[in-house]
Amino acid sequence: MRAINAIREWMEDAGLRTWVDQMGNVHGRVEGANPNAEALLIGSHMDTVVDAGMFDGSLGIVSAISALKALKVNGKLEKLKRPVEVIAFCDEEGVRFQTTFLGSGAIAGILPATTLEISDKRDTMIKDVLKENSIDITEESLLQLKYDPKSVWGYVEIHIEQGPVLEQKGFPLGVVKGIAGQTRLKVTVRGSQGHAGTVPMSMRQDPMAAAAELIVVMESLCKSPEEFLSYDDHCSDSSVKSLSSSLVCTVGEISTWPSASNVIPGQVTYTVDIRAIDDLGREAVIYDLSKRIYQICDKRSVSCNIEHKHDAGAVICDSELSSQLKSAAYSALKKMEGDIQDEVPTLMSGAGHDAMAMSHLTKVGMLFVRCRGGISHSPQEHVLDNDVWAAGLATLSFLENL
Amino acid sequence: MRAINAIREWMEDAGLRTWVDQMGNVHGRVEGANPNAEALLIGSHMDTVVDAGMFDGSLGIVSAISALKALKVNGKLEKLKRPVEVIAFCDEEGVRFQTTFLGSGAIAGILPATTLEISDKRDTMIKDVLKENSIDITEESLLQLKYDPKSVWGYVEIHIEQGPVLEQKGFPLGVVKGIAGQTRLKVTVRGSQGHAGTVPMSMRQDPMAAAAELIVVMESLCKSPEEFLSYDDHCSDSSVKSLSSSLVCTVGEISTWPSASNVIPGQVTYTVDIRAIDDLGREAVIYDLSKRIYQICDKRSVSCNIEHKHDAGAVICDSELSSQLKSAAYSALKKMEGDIQDEVPTLMSGAGHDAMAMSHLTKVGMLFVRCRGGISHSPQEHVLDNDVWAAGLATLSFLENL
Repeated sequence: MRAINAIREWMEDAGLRTWVDQMGNVHGRVEGANPNAEALLIGSHMDTVVDAGMFDGSLGIVSAISALKALKVNGKLEKLKRPVEVIAFCDEEGVRFQTTFLGSGAIAGILPATTLEISDKRDTMIKDVLKENSIDITEESLLQLKYDPKSVWGYVEIHIEQGPVLEQKGFPLGVVKGIAGQTRLKVTVRGSQGHAGTVPMSMRQDPMAAAAELIVVMESLCKSPEEFLSYDDHCSDSSVKSLSSSLVCTVGEISTWPSASNVIPGQVTYTVDIRAIDDLGREAVIYDLSKRIYQICDKRSVSCNIEHKHDAGAVICDSELSSQLKSAAYSALKKMEGDIQDEVPTLMSGAGHDAMAMSHLTKVGMLFVRCRGGISHSPQEHVLDNDVWAAGLATLSFLENL
Repeated sequence: MRAINAIREWMEDAGLRTWVDQMGNVHGRVEGANPNAEALLIGSHMDTVVDAGMFDGSLGIVSAISALKALKVNGKLEKLKRPVEVIAFCDEEGVRFQTTFLGSGAIAGILPATTLEISDKRDTMIKDVLKENSIDITEESLLQLKYDPKSVWGYVEIHIEQGPVLEQKGFPLGVVKGIAGQTRLKVTVRGSQGHAGTVPMSMRQDPMAAAAELIVVMESLCKSPEEFLSYDDHCSDSSVKSLSSSLVCTVGEISTWPSASNVIPGQVTYTVDIRAIDDLGREAVIYDLSKRIYQICDKRSVSCNIEHKHDAGAVICDSELSSQLKSAAYSALKKMEGDIQDEVPTLMSGAGHDAMAMSHLTKVGMLFVRCRGGISHSPQEHVLDNDVWAAGLATLSFLENL
C-alpha cells in the first residue's frame, strides 16, 4: 500500500490522471492530442523478491513516470499522439500466493475467476488480503478488469536485464527480441543400490554415474545444438540458428537416494530447466535430449523416467515496437555519449516479465537495462547511475516519437 | 544381552568353556591336544544394522560353533591340534556410538582408553551402557582385554559377501585375499550462481555441469585405471594390475546450493568413496583423480576443493591361512556336490570386517559366503540354505586340518 501511494503521488506530479484498480494495480493516464486513439500501455511491477535489488520492476515504472514528467515540464504532455497509460502492476513475482502475473494477468484477462480464492501459507485468500486493504473485488469485477484489445495500441516495458549479456557487450541498453519459452523436466534414474565397497565397477548399475553422463550430454547439446540436432521435421534450419544463440539448459537441483557416502545410490533425481526463444526448436531439443537420455540409460542398464513439469510458449516482441525502442535507445545514448559506433544490441529474455501476460492482450516491446555483476537475484546486483539515466532518456525519446 | 546369552548357551552345548569379557564379547574356548600351543581365534560380530539380513555377522559365529559341535559329537574336540577360541564380537557396526570394531578392537588392543567415554545421541557413555548391563569396565581393564600376540596363532572369519561377485561366478564360497583400503573425499565445486534463464551457455561457470564431468571422469578412471595411470613413481606395474580388479569409486551423496530448479547453482558438493586392495595404487588413483579434477575446474573457470575425510590402509590376508581356507572350502563343496570343476574363487572385501581390527594382533584369513540378490544391506538379501551348509562344512574341514 505504501508503494501504491508513493507511485500514485509521482504519477499525479507528472500530470497523469490516476486510479488504483480492484487488483491493486496503479494506473496513471494522459489522453494526449487524440483521446480516441488506441492507448500505449507502459509499465512494470511494484513487487520484487529478496535480493533482487532496488531496480527490479521499479525501474520500468519510474522511467515511464519520469519521462512523462519531463514532457509535462516541456509542455509536450498534451501533444502526445495517443493516450499513454503507465501501469504499476501489483504482483508479478507470485511470492505470497505462488502464482505470477496477478496484476498484468488481470488487465490482459488471462486470470481465471477462481484466482481470487487462492490462499497463502496461512490460508488467507487473495480477495481477503485486498479487502483488508479496502479494495473490494468480486469474480465479476475481476473479469471486468480486462482491457478491450481495440482500445490498446501496444505494451512497452523497461526492465533490468538480470543477466550478463549487456555488461559483456559493453552496452547500457538492449532491445528484447522475445521472452523465452520454458520447459521444466524432472529426470529420475533408477539403478541397483549397493555397498560402495562390495560391487565391482563392471557389475554396477549406478544411477549417479549415469546421471552425471546425462548432464554432461545435456550441456553439450545445449551449448552447440547445431552439432546435435538433425535437420528433419523436428527442427528447421532457422530454428537451429535461433537455438544456437538463445538456448539455455540448467540442472538446479539433484538428489540421491538413500544418500549415504558409502552406498551406491538406488535412485537419482534431478531437474532440467530448458529455455529458448524458438518453441519448435525447444521442442526439438527436448525430443533429442530425451532420446539420448533413454539411449544412455539403456546402455547402462538403468531405468530413466522423464516427467514434464511445466511448459510455456515463447513470446516474440513486436518488430515495429522493437525498432522504435531501438531508435529511442540509440538517440538516448547519442545524447549522452556523442558518437555511438555500434548498433544497439538485441537480446532475448530468459526470465518471465509482465510483458508475457500482456502479450495475450496486445503487441509488446521491451528494453533491457544493463546490470553490473551479472548475477541475477543477488545482493551484488546493481545498475550504474548512467544506465538508469539512459533508460529514462530512451523512454522519453520513445514517447516523443510515438 | 539376549544374543550374549543365546550364543553362550550354544557354545556350552558345543563343549566350550565360555565367558563374557568386560566389553561384552562372548568367548567359547576348547584347549584341544596342545593347550600351550598358540590359539586359533575364529568369530564374527553379534550386532548388525537394519536391513542387513539375518546372516550378517551371525553366520560366522554360528558356523564356528556348529563345526565345533560336530567335532564334539564325533569325539574329536579334544584332539584339536591347537586351542580354538570362538569370539562373538559385541559391536562391529558402530551404529549407536558411531565408532566401529568396539569388540574386536578391544581384543586387538587398538582402542584408546578414552573410547569408554564416547557417548550416544542421548549422551549415555559406553561404560554406562555396559554398567547398566552388569558389566563393569575401567580404562585399565579395557587395556587388559588385549590378547598377547604370542598366545595367538591367527584369526579366521566366515562372513557373507554382501556383494554380487560369488553369485556371478556361480560359487557358494570364496577366499578373501584382503580387505580394501578406503579413502573418503568431499569435493566442493564453486561457480557463478545465476538465473537459469538469463545467463547464456557460453558465459556460465556452472558447478553442476562441472561436477557431472568430474564424476564421469572419475568413473572412467576407476573402471580402467590401467588406461589412465602413468607407470611412474606413483604406481608400479603390479599396483595397476591389482587396481584393475579391485578399485571401486562411488559418489553416494550430492547436493547443490541454493537448490532451485530455475537457478544455476553457486556450489555443488559431493562425496567420493574410493577403495582398493593396493594402498599405493589407491594413492596413485587419488593423486591422478585430484589432478584431473583441478584441470577440469581450471578449464571451466570454477573452483574446486578436495577434502580428505577418511583414510584407512588395506589389510592383506595371510597366504597360508588363505590356502588352508581354500582347501577347506574345496573339500566342503566336493562333499556336497561330488565333482568340482573350477577352483574356489579368490576375491577382495570392499567392506570392513572384524578381521581388519584383528590384523593388528595376528595374521588373518576370511571366507566369504555367496549372497543372493547381490544387494548389500537390503531386505532382499539372503543366503541359500545350501550355502549356509557349505559354510559350516568348510569351517569343520578347516578345523579338522589345523
